[in-house]
Amino acid sequence: MKKETTFIYGKHAVREAMLEMPHIFKRVMFQSGSDAKDMMYQYAKKQEINVESFDSRHMPKGVPKDAVHQGVVAEIFQEGIMKDFDEFMKDLEISPQTGLLVLGEVQDPQNVGSMIRSAAAFGIAGILIPTHKQAKVNATVIKVSVGMAFKVPLVSIGNVNHTLEDLKKAGFWIYGLDGESQQSIVKESFDAPTVLVVGNEGEGIRAKTKDQCDIMLSIPMSSDCESLNAGTSAAIAMYQWRNWKK
Amino acid sequence: MKKETTFIYGKHAVREAMLEMPHIFKRVMFQSGSDAKDMMYQYAKKQEINVESFDSRHMPKGVPKDAVHQGVVAEIFQEGIMKDFDEFMKDLEISPQTGLLVLGEVQDPQNVGSMIRSAAAFGIAGILIPTHKQAKVNATVIKVSVGMAFKVPLVSIGNVNHTLEDLKKAGFWIYGLDGESQQSIVKESFDAPTVLVVGNEGEGIRAKTKDQCDIMLSIPMSSDCESLNAGTSAAIAMYQWRNWKK
Repeated sequence: MKKETTFIYGKHAVREAMLEMPHIFKRVMFQSGSDAKDMMYQYAKKQEINVESFDSRHMPKGVPKDAVHQGVVAEIFQEGIMKDFDEFMKDLEISPQTGLLVLGEVQDPQNVGSMIRSAAAFGIAGILIPTHKQAKVNATVIKVSVGMAFKVPLVSIGNVNHTLEDLKKAGFWIYGLDGESQQSIVKESFDAPTVLVVGNEGEGIRAKTKDQCDIMLSIPMSSDCESLNAGTSAAIAMYQWRNWKK
Repeated sequence: MKKETTFIYGKHAVREAMLEMPHIFKRVMFQSGSDAKDMMYQYAKKQEINVESFDSRHMPKGVPKDAVHQGVVAEIFQEGIMKDFDEFMKDLEISPQTGLLVLGEVQDPQNVGSMIRSAAAFGIAGILIPTHKQAKVNATVIKVSVGMAFKVPLVSIGNVNHTLEDLKKAGFWIYGLDGESQQSIVKESFDAPTVLVVGNEGEGIRAKTKDQCDIMLSIPMSSDCESLNAGTSAAIAMYQWRNWKK
């Protein structure tokens, strides 16, 4: 079976990928004379990555014509980005400072990318992403994550609810984000290993997933404003989780 | 001189605009049979807004073909959205709980829209937006703000540095967001009327604007992550400002 590939582009994204995951590259392409080439050519050769060149008038199919590529485009094997859950858990050192993010049917690739970027900023140990009913980690996600998709472990999970059961057995407390909850995240001390669950942009967290959560938390906000963007909510939750560790 | 107009679309955005700013409408257009029409037609008539209909096979110029319009499109006068700074200040009740956001050359309309949405969530009294070197309030901004661009006062300012001087005279403390600052926003008590200044996505706040800030604050984050998205940073700063009021 042919392995699925996707294109990534831009200096940040490609550099991070090359440093963290050289094994996922099918090839990297530089625009001649670009400073991206000056910066990465030698390293790519050393990592035995296929190096090609490209002309911006003839972009490879799969790269948007208006892509801000900054002189570098790479084709990568998509499945290489995702870690296996059991493997991930085997290597994870669990302490009260450990935090994980679980995506529960997040639909917008912009939000997924933004959550990955924020997760990196606040020291989240891994982002658990279901294989179904969930935006996949594609070129947009990687771009919006400014390459952090290669830095924070992205872990593929089958079923959110089963995974949360496993995480509870491993000692994690499961917190769901829910604007309707009476319990404010501001009061929470997060003194155990923590899982933060974010739901779908429109519907929030599914009822069965809520049942698996130990506590539902809301972000305090003005009563006349409908809601925060999903990526922003997740960022604030991770920020709040991280601050209490100080 | 012909007044500049822009198109907005989607139920959230158009409904908020109609409720908060009926005077900015040139016309509103409904798709026949849409629930947007059921919801808003009577109100539009009552507000004496020109009502027309549209066919999604023949969208008005200025509306992207793939726009998620949900059955409603409106043409509005852009300048009507922005308030004059002197008028805004005259009506503003300034207390230690008052917070303003100043945009210093934010380039990405997605970020501007996201900041407006978050500002509404955290009770910011106004967003001050320079007329030059700054993304304008356009259809994308309004869409991303989910209509909050019509709810939080958007105030047009000429020069950021002069405006900050005026705000200091009015009793505000000026806080600049700067990832390089040694002073963490977590420690700040925000017990005076507050202005938060956010800078350009790539360059941050300009040196001359920094000189006008009383304090530069950073958001604590992992040392190996380059930065947060500008919209996310602004959201966290506003969240942190608001929490200390509780």
